[in-house]
Amino acid sequence: MNKTVDLNSDMGESFGAYTIGNDTELMAYISSANVACGFHAGDPKTMRATVQRALASNVAIGAHPGLQDLIGFGRRPMEITPDEGYDLVLYQIGALLGMTQAEGGKLHHVKPHGALYNMAAKNKELALAVAKAVYKLDASLVLYGLAGSALIDAGREVGLQTASEVFADRTYQSDGNLTSRRSPNALIVDADQASKQVLRMIQEGKVMTQQGKEIDIEADTICIHGDGAHALAFAKEIHAKIQENGITIKRIKQ
Amino acid sequence: MNKTVDLNSDMGESFGAYTIGNDTELMAYISSANVACGFHAGDPKTMRATVQRALASNVAIGAHPGLQDLIGFGRRPMEITPDEGYDLVLYQIGALLGMTQAEGGKLHHVKPHGALYNMAAKNKELALAVAKAVYKLDASLVLYGLAGSALIDAGREVGLQTASEVFADRTYQSDGNLTSRRSPNALIVDADQASKQVLRMIQEGKVMTQQGKEIDIEADTICIHGDGAHALAFAKEIHAKIQENGITIKRIKQ
Amino acid sequence: MNKTVDLNSDMGESFGAYTIGNDTELMAYISSANVACGFHAGDPKTMRATVQRALASNVAIGAHPGLQDLIGFGRRPMEITPDEGYDLVLYQIGALLGMTQAEGGKLHHVKPHGALYNMAAKNKELALAVAKAVYKLDASLVLYGLAGSALIDAGREVGLQTASEVFADRTYQSDGNLTSRRSPNALIVDADQASKQVLRMIQEGKVMTQQGKEIDIEADTICIHGDGAHALAFAKEIHAKIQENGITIKRIKQ
Amino acid sequence: MNKTVDLNSDMGESFGAYTIGNDTELMAYISSANVACGFHAGDPKTMRATVQRALASNVAIGAHPGLQDLIGFGRRPMEITPDEGYDLVLYQIGALLGMTQAEGGKLHHVKPHGALYNMAAKNKELALAVAKAVYKLDASLVLYGLAGSALIDAGREVGLQTASEVFADRTYQSDGNLTSRRSPNALIVDADQASKQVLRMIQEGKVMTQQGKEIDIEADTICIHGDGAHALAFAKEIHAKIQENGITIKRIKQ
Repeated sequence: MNKTVDLNSDMGESFGAYTIGNDTELMAYISSANVACGFHAGDPKTMRATVQRALASNVAIGAHPGLQDLIGFGRRPMEITPDEGYDLVLYQIGALLGMTQAEGGKLHHVKPHGALYNMAAKNKELALAVAKAVYKLDASLVLYGLAGSALIDAGREVGLQTASEVFADRTYQSDGNLTSRRSPNALIVDADQASKQVLRMIQEGKVMTQQGKEIDIEADTICIHGDGAHALAFAKEIHAKIQENGITIKRIKQ
Repeated sequence: MNKTVDLNSDMGESFGAYTIGNDTELMAYISSANVACGFHAGDPKTMRATVQRALASNVAIGAHPGLQDLIGFGRRPMEITPDEGYDLVLYQIGALLGMTQAEGGKLHHVKPHGALYNMAAKNKELALAVAKAVYKLDASLVLYGLAGSALIDAGREVGLQTASEVFADRTYQSDGNLTSRRSPNALIVDADQASKQVLRMIQEGKVMTQQGKEIDIEADTICIHGDGAHALAFAKEIHAKIQENGITIKRIKQ
Repeated sequence: MNKTVDLNSDMGESFGAYTIGNDTELMAYISSANVACGFHAGDPKTMRATVQRALASNVAIGAHPGLQDLIGFGRRPMEITPDEGYDLVLYQIGALLGMTQAEGGKLHHVKPHGALYNMAAKNKELALAVAKAVYKLDASLVLYGLAGSALIDAGREVGLQTASEVFADRTYQSDGNLTSRRSPNALIVDADQASKQVLRMIQEGKVMTQQGKEIDIEADTICIHGDGAHALAFAKEIHAKIQENGITIKRIKQ
Repeated sequence: MNKTVDLNSDMGESFGAYTIGNDTELMAYISSANVACGFHAGDPKTMRATVQRALASNVAIGAHPGLQDLIGFGRRPMEITPDEGYDLVLYQIGALLGMTQAEGGKLHHVKPHGALYNMAAKNKELALAVAKAVYKLDASLVLYGLAGSALIDAGREVGLQTASEVFADRTYQSDGNLTSRRSPNALIVDADQASKQVLRMIQEGKVMTQQGKEIDIEADTICIHGDGAHALAFAKEIHAKIQENGITIKRIKQ
């Protein structure tokens, strides 16, 4: 039985005059923050402020690199070569690493964003390119990826510490993939149901799929969504339920 | 008398499908490269290729951060706050630092580009913000700036090693500034005249100004322009003349 | 005495996943909308949606071109040549003109945004370049500019219909300029005071300045800010006060 | 037998300080120019200069809208919705239409660029969205697309005049598609062979495929590539051969 788990959230996704998310409030309920690096969202000012906030809250700082598609928030799949993936990930991690070092902190992990996350979950060559970029920059960084995905495999293959990510508010398919957002049953909107799914994933390493089949799942870190009307309430609920069940919330050991 | 000097050139200013400069050929004639970091020019792929080329040629690698104005090549002055300057410099240096570390190299210096270089030469608050960003990221980095400028002063003030930059192909004003590019006499097009100006600056620490007055000038590093029809021939000429005069061309000691 | 006045507001400043402003609600209280064109804010989808909303509300549609500085929301002055100003204004108006035509509407006016608005208020060459771009594209467009500014002069000089813009919630200097936002007295936060200033500008063509001197001012159109907590309440108040005083709110005649 | 044909070339793909192509020289050998609109390449200044050059050479002016991927030159396929396609095409055509009108010209056609061209050749929903955007903006515009593609079908369906495009220097598959650029036989490098393929397509409406099967093909317009070392020589050769064979080179009738 898993006695500790990490709670992570995407942060620093504001841009210039545009504000998104509840970064300040959410910081109290997570153990690691994935900071947008300026390609799909985020800007240098927002990145620095987010790093400062995470350091003040003792939250682990990770890079959250995305496709260079600000207008689409990095959510639109794009055909990129593994080399292009390597370079854009390296660039973005470096930028955040600089910010973090300058603030006296240490970069902890990398979690790709949106379409890049999904593409690297399935495309092994791209996954390897992403993992190598992380490894070459700093071999002590933890690579976050979808539990059971090609990205987790790639991270292990290149020698990185990995963190298998699970979702509280998404349903699963029997092949281990998340149900597509285009499907009506993709999201779990009931906080109680979401908490139960999370607890079972942490305590038993199991999740019930949409096909009614129970599958094994590794749950090192849980993604907490920061955006949307109920994000904060949802985060509090999950955070409380996990603690009530004697599970320690802490960052992945680097 | 100064017996060593650094020759630096701006590099890695290609972008996507667009190619600019003679980076590969020029690498043989310089001791330090200022690599564009993606804001005014450059992209992740170009940055990595440029870092690899510099490492292969034993050329010191520096970050060349610019204003976020790709369409204007970072040459158009923009009203930015010192904080904005701090953040954009930090972001860009970090990105290149990541590239350099991943390739097994070590970042050596920082030289702001274009309008940012000129603005930081005159505006002391901005100069201090730039210098602090460099210092906080890595206090061993060398800060390149216009000889006699506010940026050199700021670098010294925060505790950085600085390199006073002079130009072979630009004329000077008696206040130590470069003659504005809008003036007809801004450029020295005769290679022989340029070589003589450079030698005098290195050997005697003097330069003759457009006003006919001789002024003191520190010459730690000489800027070699990489773009334009005669750039390569010019670089060879300067490189040869310096060596003929018993001066050693080598990177600034970090 | 002026019996009609136009109420204009900047709109369509959302971008991709980022939402800003209260466009839908505000549409009921204005007679003309200045639609961001994708350089400082806005994107093709937002532009089209804003055009549709304006057409549905019988609100005149204007282009709101800005500097190409998304991260700074077009608010940071930048040194651009008159030719650069001409081209960027022409490009952006064309893009919105296409959107408007495709939706069966007709473009009504052009109002530069932010730093471009302020630069064109003072720099006559830039003002002329902007005015010429508007005129060459469609000589029937109305040019909005700061009352008494170089942009209004330039519009008249090239033969455009102009609209002198005044502000309800900004204070004035005795030279006719707005008090700088950096000054503590720049903004009028009391709705009643703002309404009174507006009424006097419309009815008497006068405004009391920060220097205690009354000056003449032309008030063809009043800028209603759409962003911020009190924007909507403020808009309603101004709208109501103007109607109560027997002044008709309608678009500038093209 | 077809007695007239259009020769088109992609133009105005320079950006800021970056120059690409041989626009000025090539203008003499074509009857229509597809002008980049700022998303995959091009900028307002380049667009205006290209429009002026085309008008001076009596070359028909078309919009060449692409995906918003400057770093990838619009060549990387991206998952966009038909609505996103509609909006980005409309925006870009409008921008060029404004430039063209302001210069006293009339926009003649639209040809999507790169990945958007290829995606709209196969994806019927996207093709319809692109065709509708063109039609709604100006129903007299000619839509250029790959001969036999979904885009040509969509253009006809919405009521646009279409121009079926063929390539001199690309080989064909028996299903009418171009051989993928990843295949070794994708390109025809022999100018003589290219000329023969072109003449046969124009005069007989036939092309020999890589599978050794002859297929029917409509050839209203021939794409002349402007970039690369041999582009200009190639263009001259094709231009000369077509005229020698009594075929008139002229723009598609609007």
